[in-house]
Amino acid sequence: MFLDKLQWRYAVKKMDPAKVVPEDKVDQIVEAVRMAPTSSGLQPFELLVVTNTEIREQIKPVSWNQSQITDGSHLLVFAVWDNYSAERIDAVTQQMADERGGMNDMLAGYYDNLKKMYLPRDAEENYAHAARQAYIALGFALAAAAELEVDSTPMEGFDPKAVDEILGLKEKGLRSVLLLPLGYRAEEGDWLASMKKVRKPAAAMVTRVD
Amino acid sequence: MFLDKLQWRYAVKKMDPAKVVPEDKVDQIVEAVRMAPTSSGLQPFELLVVTNTEIREQIKPVSWNQSQITDGSHLLVFAVWDNYSAERIDAVTQQMADERGGMNDMLAGYYDNLKKMYLPRDAEENYAHAARQAYIALGFALAAAAELEVDSTPMEGFDPKAVDEILGLKEKGLRSVLLLPLGYRAEEGDWLASMKKVRKPAAAMVTRVD
Repeated sequence: MFLDKLQWRYAVKKMDPAKVVPEDKVDQIVEAVRMAPTSSGLQPFELLVVTNTEIREQIKPVSWNQSQITDGSHLLVFAVWDNYSAERIDAVTQQMADERGGMNDMLAGYYDNLKKMYLPRDAEENYAHAARQAYIALGFALAAAAELEVDSTPMEGFDPKAVDEILGLKEKGLRSVLLLPLGYRAEEGDWLASMKKVRKPAAAMVTRVD
Repeated sequence: MFLDKLQWRYAVKKMDPAKVVPEDKVDQIVEAVRMAPTSSGLQPFELLVVTNTEIREQIKPVSWNQSQITDGSHLLVFAVWDNYSAERIDAVTQQMADERGGMNDMLAGYYDNLKKMYLPRDAEENYAHAARQAYIALGFALAAAAELEVDSTPMEGFDPKAVDEILGLKEKGLRSVLLLPLGYRAEEGDWLASMKKVRKPAAAMVTRVD
């Protein structure tokens, strides 16, 4: 149960480099990302699953030397569309048509309206909207990992341009937005492991309007 | 299991107004939101749980008349900080100190650096960063709801200024960013219920770098 793991999970600061997340668990975490809902079903990001040690060694110094990047066994990189485009939206529309019995006016009209709204906007605004969708998928990845008792550390703190360069993302029209190392906690080396998990009390954060 | 519900969940288009989500399930979904990780632990948003029918009737017309807003039994509203401020960051720092054995240099230094980075930036940039954190929590809420077999429909499509006005959010320095009605699907009235769930194949979305 994911809901039983809300206290168990935390942003692990030190992972055990000797422990490897089994591929079947990685596959389930990736599947959660793939199935995460996104605005208008566009799924405007890709996911890179990096195990290559040399590549992760290059990413680490542009990510504040966070050791989980190389001590974990798998590094997930969420790479967001740098812009919406007719081609990208049409591909989604076509897949919907292919899998739901053909093109129809409702489907075509919906995505035509979306293009009228998105395509005149500047790239940065569209990227910002797309990036938010990747955060929903990050939530799904974190939930899936916790359910499987796999540790993970969500990271925004890295140089996205440098990571894009290392992974060749710019040429693909993608921008790295989130890193998520997967692995297993090494509690003796983790300053955060022994600390109380701190969250605001519900009274400070939740308001009922009955 | 959340992972068993990835196919089951979908963005329900028609909810059964006769069915009410039990409060203990709502509490578990809210708890998932409260426990979701956020950048630097700031939790820069609040959650409103709206059951009041009149208020939901006011929100519906400024949300494209999406019927789930009133047909569901509970409407979650994610309301994000309109900016980072010294007061908001200091409150988080103080809570960390209170719950983890007192203030210390590492803790104070970390949040001082954060203030140096965030406070000179304009409100819109800080809001955009805070809003992304709410999307992680949305992912947690969707995962929790699915695990509990509660239906939910994530919505970006509404007039945030109008919703802020209805709920008095501006005076609290908050901006509505996401709506999430909770309820139960009414399959006979839902055009989407019978349709195949469409997601990109992993081959189109996931790249291994081994």
